[in-house]
Amino acid sequence: MADFTDHLKPAHDGTATLGMERDGSAINGTELAKHLLGRDDFLERQERVLKVLSQEKLFNKKQELNLSRPERYHLGLARAKAIQRIVRRESWDHEDYKMAEYLNDEMSPYFLHMSMFVTTVREQASDAQQAYWMPIILNYDIIGCYAQTELGHGSNVRGLETTATWDPVKKDFEIHSPYLTASKWWNGSMGRTATHAIVVAQLLLPEKNNPAVLKSHGPQTFIMQIRDEKTHEPLDNIAVGDIGPKYGYASMDNGYMLFDHCRVPRSAMLSRYAEVSHETGAFVRTGHPAVVFGSLTFVRGQIIMHARLVLARAVTVAVRYCSIRRQFKDRDSKSPADDEMAVLDYPTVQIRILPLLATTFALHYTGEYMHELYRNSRQKIEKGDFGPLAELHSASSGLKSLCTMLAADGIETCRRAMGGHGFGGGSGLVGLNSDYLSKPTVEGDNWMISQQVAAYLIKKMTGSVKDPDTVPKDPTDTDELFQFYLANRSHRIPQTVLKDGVVNDEAVVEVFQWRAADLSYRAYQARVVEKKPWTKLMIQLHNLSRAYSEQILVTNFYNAFSNISTLSQPTPDVLRSCFRLYALYTLDQYASSFTMTTAVSPESVYTLQDTILELMAELRPHAVKLVDAWSIPDWLLNSALGRSDGKVYEELFDMAHRRNPLNKVTFNPDWRSDEIVLGSGDGGRHVLAKL
Amino acid sequence: MADFTDHLKPAHDGTATLGMERDGSAINGTELAKHLLGRDDFLERQERVLKVLSQEKLFNKKQELNLSRPERYHLGLARAKAIQRIVRRESWDHEDYKMAEYLNDEMSPYFLHMSMFVTTVREQASDAQQAYWMPIILNYDIIGCYAQTELGHGSNVRGLETTATWDPVKKDFEIHSPYLTASKWWNGSMGRTATHAIVVAQLLLPEKNNPAVLKSHGPQTFIMQIRDEKTHEPLDNIAVGDIGPKYGYASMDNGYMLFDHCRVPRSAMLSRYAEVSHETGAFVRTGHPAVVFGSLTFVRGQIIMHARLVLARAVTVAVRYCSIRRQFKDRDSKSPADDEMAVLDYPTVQIRILPLLATTFALHYTGEYMHELYRNSRQKIEKGDFGPLAELHSASSGLKSLCTMLAADGIETCRRAMGGHGFGGGSGLVGLNSDYLSKPTVEGDNWMISQQVAAYLIKKMTGSVKDPDTVPKDPTDTDELFQFYLANRSHRIPQTVLKDGVVNDEAVVEVFQWRAADLSYRAYQARVVEKKPWTKLMIQLHNLSRAYSEQILVTNFYNAFSNISTLSQPTPDVLRSCFRLYALYTLDQYASSFTMTTAVSPESVYTLQDTILELMAELRPHAVKLVDAWSIPDWLLNSALGRSDGKVYEELFDMAHRRNPLNKVTFNPDWRSDEIVLGSGDGGRHVLAKL
Repeated sequence: MADFTDHLKPAHDGTATLGMERDGSAINGTELAKHLLGRDDFLERQERVLKVLSQEKLFNKKQELNLSRPERYHLGLARAKAIQRIVRRESWDHEDYKMAEYLNDEMSPYFLHMSMFVTTVREQASDAQQAYWMPIILNYDIIGCYAQTELGHGSNVRGLETTATWDPVKKDFEIHSPYLTASKWWNGSMGRTATHAIVVAQLLLPEKNNPAVLKSHGPQTFIMQIRDEKTHEPLDNIAVGDIGPKYGYASMDNGYMLFDHCRVPRSAMLSRYAEVSHETGAFVRTGHPAVVFGSLTFVRGQIIMHARLVLARAVTVAVRYCSIRRQFKDRDSKSPADDEMAVLDYPTVQIRILPLLATTFALHYTGEYMHELYRNSRQKIEKGDFGPLAELHSASSGLKSLCTMLAADGIETCRRAMGGHGFGGGSGLVGLNSDYLSKPTVEGDNWMISQQVAAYLIKKMTGSVKDPDTVPKDPTDTDELFQFYLANRSHRIPQTVLKDGVVNDEAVVEVFQWRAADLSYRAYQARVVEKKPWTKLMIQLHNLSRAYSEQILVTNFYNAFSNISTLSQPTPDVLRSCFRLYALYTLDQYASSFTMTTAVSPESVYTLQDTILELMAELRPHAVKLVDAWSIPDWLLNSALGRSDGKVYEELFDMAHRRNPLNKVTFNPDWRSDEIVLGSGDGGRHVLAKL
Repeated sequence: MADFTDHLKPAHDGTATLGMERDGSAINGTELAKHLLGRDDFLERQERVLKVLSQEKLFNKKQELNLSRPERYHLGLARAKAIQRIVRRESWDHEDYKMAEYLNDEMSPYFLHMSMFVTTVREQASDAQQAYWMPIILNYDIIGCYAQTELGHGSNVRGLETTATWDPVKKDFEIHSPYLTASKWWNGSMGRTATHAIVVAQLLLPEKNNPAVLKSHGPQTFIMQIRDEKTHEPLDNIAVGDIGPKYGYASMDNGYMLFDHCRVPRSAMLSRYAEVSHETGAFVRTGHPAVVFGSLTFVRGQIIMHARLVLARAVTVAVRYCSIRRQFKDRDSKSPADDEMAVLDYPTVQIRILPLLATTFALHYTGEYMHELYRNSRQKIEKGDFGPLAELHSASSGLKSLCTMLAADGIETCRRAMGGHGFGGGSGLVGLNSDYLSKPTVEGDNWMISQQVAAYLIKKMTGSVKDPDTVPKDPTDTDELFQFYLANRSHRIPQTVLKDGVVNDEAVVEVFQWRAADLSYRAYQARVVEKKPWTKLMIQLHNLSRAYSEQILVTNFYNAFSNISTLSQPTPDVLRSCFRLYALYTLDQYASSFTMTTAVSPESVYTLQDTILELMAELRPHAVKLVDAWSIPDWLLNSALGRSDGKVYEELFDMAHRRNPLNKVTFNPDWRSDEIVLGSGDGGRHVLAKL
């Protein structure tokens, strides 16, 4: 509809502003983008897949926030199916498919089929089982899910209540839910989509000498059909459905499932590493499942790489918008002709956004490091050398906890830094925030897995203390760190990270490492020497995990400098400022932990704030170019505030004035009338019938 | 539908668990509830209004999360209208009405009518204008909104772009939007509901000696009709609509509005304090608008009281659920017969929830204090004594910033502390979180208004330094604090808040006050003495505002002890533990700020963590009774996890299995088919048509 608003322009031109921002920095954006995203043809793939998806009407994101949660599942399923057809039409490979999922940016109802379901079959099924299942899985003839978590148990897998009882007469298993809390719960793709499930259940076998007594052999995995292939109704004695709305993940059918004495054949138990003997009914271990830990580690490595792109998205929106947004003149301005300031020039805005911009790079270099570490370790593991696994698992756990928290909190910090418009649907962060909020909890709750990290470090420190002079064969990074610490702790002098206002990068790294080592030593002292109860130490151990992981981020960022230095200037200098900002900002946030561990002196901490301000001033002119380098397509950003062309206000207005379905309805606001929609047949009362 | 799940029970009985928790604490819950909520018959009113609302089908909350955003507005309007009818039917007074809004727990499309719209008319309209407008406002014959914020300007009201130009010939105003960014934006109740608006616009008058030049007289308020009374369509030359989906507030129609040379009569300008002369066209001030600041202060005081109840809601859910939820045995457990631990017994869970439980009380006593302060000051202000206003405004600004942030962050912390189920719709926190997230931004952005607080403190400190010995007539709390500080700063010895593990409450209060005074002095030094640019100091000033406000919370909590001590034991002791936990937890969080200001010694900080653990252990047995005292009705909590009867798992399952509309639809998951809903006419494709 044409109206008088058509010719209106914003008081300031956002496109021109972003142009000036880009002209003001000499960073070679193409070079930096390739440095960050060159691996596996990421950029080329993104462009190619984006071109296909963005032309399909079904994948346009414009009305997502106006759909109800049930509608979002309808849409999610339609898109999941469409992607399968496009994959075949375009001959996409698996990486292309994953790129499509990334760009589509919602949890697909097929997600668990191609992740945990197929992975579990691949890793835990016997060769014969794989021969049967893999072809129909890869062809999507069945849709699978992974039913481990229950209503009553998540983190504590050993506490699962679902049982699988061996019947020595019929030679099959009975899967059963003895309590309501045994209900499978949260399991993705299970609520409405899946035809089959991996079910994790306590294996109960009759005792040999006393068959009336059942003995538990712990949680084992079973594969079974759960819905009819024609009617898609649940099979007999199975209650299964969607658990309902939750934070984010509207397109995903997280489900519940209960079993009433369901029989499944002996072949249902995945038997690469364990099986129940057909003849004797005995539990037989047939292999070492440690390699499974390896793939959990790989998943966690991917979470870090994903976290950096998610955080980069939020930071991209915040940096671009805050460059364009103006509010208030400088309080010290003397001239009435002075313009209002760009809000990104306010240190109170910078301190929220720029350390997060620096964090995207910190996450990146550690993600790269984990990728390499996993690749190197994988070869050893496949040769049966499980030596590197413990360190790899520990590092990936601590980093999963730290990085998902940094990203989840970072999204919300960026949103708030944008003031009122950050709160609007045009921010593009509404869905991102809700969807990402699950990450600190899933795949190992952040507070829970940090305990595992601490346990590993205590064990390592115990070994180092016992034998401080022997260099272990094939020492891990942690071995080397602890040896250095133990050799120097008696004569430690707290470091100064600033000398005449200049940051000493080596000292920064040392300070983070020292703090992690000292906290490890304190934990060892409390637990091993003083034998304090684990529970009493939990908070201390959580903080240890965080400090240890921060040390990994700082060390890897520093170690990447040799690689960074090959880039053309000023990029290496700017990335060095990012390193310093991330490190000093973190140091300032947890100052008392650094001073307590004699990593730095208290006086050294008090002067940090000025240096942080200076570092932010150094980064500020490059902020737009730096976020550009992350190459998040506008179509994925889906954000008026973050548009790469700077048309913030034009897009916000267009969303409201031309694309908001609510504005097509005229209401009756008179309280005397119970008509809701003015002059309509049912007065809009069909909506109220849904209550 | 009856099925095999009907007879299933959870492995552990939540009702029995909560019963034991309640039996385990000797706190007199009724007495404490009355202590907290006795004022203005809150509890009696809550019960009475709840009884009415909870019987109306329209107000049941069960399907809210399944509705689309446009549907939520339909429902919101229907409920707003129904409340008006119930108010009249039940002869509810204004407090009853406000209670109904609180229990209904969504932003009413009428909200702005009864808040900013009527308040502005009451405060800024002349007597004649009030005589015309007030009756039709109070009778809801018109529905009003308040159009101040624009697309381009929020915090900086002086930067608004909408103009109101006086026409000296026609003797009327022309309201106009010269730019797209002049569009009114975010204004509640405006998008679809309002018939009238208060419009804030830059008043432009022709200069006396040169009528071709327009001179701005700053933002002024105008009242005008925006929609037709019959058709409810926008009047000519007005474009108005809803801005679309956003975080939370789904039921509210936040709007946009643009004007194309709209004429309004001279009487449209609210003229209690300023008007344009009919004869000369001159701008004439007719009064002192300072009293308006007073009501802004009142609104901010209410925000604190609201923040405590919102936080109490989240903490209620978290405490009850975490008492019932069990996960893992104690790692040091030796006996296989040991039960899994309640997660609230984990210090890693306690440290997230119990300091927030303590914070609800900290907020409470400061809310009470602000209420008193406002009442006392109000009398002076009405007598024309604006002396107390500056301190009141400063305190309320700083507290608004701190308290809304504590509550907003606290909701999310509680949610994450509940692990997986915290993420589900059954937490009852999905809507609360989204709705409350706006609070740190609206009514003065938290980072912005903290600058005002700092400016006030610098001004006060400058006065105190200039004249340290003169006691001001009618000294404010800040005057007294700064005098004490200046008299003692030369011989300051950092305090020790713990002596042999016992908390020294007086020392705790002094430490918080000292830190606030010292940061004020540093700010004075930097700005007034060293004349540093304001912008460079912004982060420091933000931290000052926070420290000053924390000092208010700690001081008021401490001062309330005389009142608390009249309660029966163990309540006073438990509340004292809450005081200590809030204070020491805060001290630990910002330790380097306390040590830098020589408030406490660094060594004193390192021992805090053990005391915090002990305080949490003291509070733990009373946690359920303490949250019970906040008396949040189950109907308002709307949370399976937080139910007062502990039937967590039964309710979660019921929501999923019996009340989830998605489970009534059977889908076709086969990617080869583009049918979405199995066997349906259009295959569910009507949903996709909405894209």
